[in-house]
Amino acid sequence: MTGLFITFEGGDGSGKTTQINLLATWLEARGKTVVLTREPGGTDLGVELRNIVLHRKGFIAPRAEALLYAADRSHHIKSLVRPALERGEVVVQDRYLDSSVAYQGAGRVLDPEEVRELSLWATERLMPNLTVLLDVPASVAKARQALTEREYDRLEAEAEDFHTRVRESYLSLAAAEPERFLVVNGELPIDEIHQSIITKVSDLLG
Amino acid sequence: MTGLFITFEGGDGSGKTTQINLLATWLEARGKTVVLTREPGGTDLGVELRNIVLHRKGFIAPRAEALLYAADRSHHIKSLVRPALERGEVVVQDRYLDSSVAYQGAGRVLDPEEVRELSLWATERLMPNLTVLLDVPASVAKARQALTEREYDRLEAEAEDFHTRVRESYLSLAAAEPERFLVVNGELPIDEIHQSIITKVSDLLG
Repeated sequence: MTGLFITFEGGDGSGKTTQINLLATWLEARGKTVVLTREPGGTDLGVELRNIVLHRKGFIAPRAEALLYAADRSHHIKSLVRPALERGEVVVQDRYLDSSVAYQGAGRVLDPEEVRELSLWATERLMPNLTVLLDVPASVAKARQALTEREYDRLEAEAEDFHTRVRESYLSLAAAEPERFLVVNGELPIDEIHQSIITKVSDLLG
Repeated sequence: MTGLFITFEGGDGSGKTTQINLLATWLEARGKTVVLTREPGGTDLGVELRNIVLHRKGFIAPRAEALLYAADRSHHIKSLVRPALERGEVVVQDRYLDSSVAYQGAGRVLDPEEVRELSLWATERLMPNLTVLLDVPASVAKARQALTEREYDRLEAEAEDFHTRVRESYLSLAAAEPERFLVVNGELPIDEIHQSIITKVSDLLG
């Protein structure tokens, strides 16, 4: 495995998309081959599963939902991410296992440790070289979303206190693995955030 | 949990559907409320997932496939089977976790013990009161299927030696849990098989 695997985490509205695009442009300007991808929905199968978990009407059992995210992840890592890393490319991914732990584990009814173990089984224990956490208060994320009129989806419909619990969960994941995580204050100016990220990525590229 | 949970296992073409219908009729004649169901595909969500795992063109990563079966199972047990058992009904189900272990574990590339553990997590460890295994040689199952011109599906397209490995895997599961399993020679006459099954079910009904 000679490539670099970078994941972005944070609530919807935390600015992940903006920073991912800036990082990709910066990497490409340095001659890197970049694969931009996301979970759920990074493959054809993933798009079908994303539609089910995010847009389906009606009850989905919590464990079933966690298993669908894990299925998407498993297929995505096996068919797209690992091959790119083996070719030496840089994979920049919007959401990975920390999302599942933060949303499913802390926010719902499932044991976070079990949710994490499920993801690790699904991916044959592939961990990112770097995870960028864009940290914003729930109220900021909510205001940004309102501005962009994003489409309705099941997770975004949850209440603000849910987002607060997700944020706390993310921060505790980052505290547990400080060498993997870069936590950035998502309320800083866009370029300032970008500078923090490329400083860290430069180190990793050596 | 006051109901009775009976699962049927065996290769396609082993006669499960016939025996399930005979058992349901027999139970209803004795005043029982019977829920006939199956995996994959016992719920609306399950039908969508069944279409993906059985009929989708193209590669699905083995762990992703196992996770999709587990998602179907989790939702099915939580939303349909457990509520019926709690109402004191008899659930008669075509395929359950032994199918996953036999097909995914023995037939594919995954560790059977891991596949079993995944199902147990998905269902919060719900085990059947009785599992009827209809045991037929792979060649018999194949001939029966040809007669009924069943629709193409991904598992049925596998070669005969795959079915032989599945059969061996089923028999070893049955040997490990003799109190749960009733193994019946599927080449016996239909009514003889039915008599073996209702003898056992009568015992369980007390």
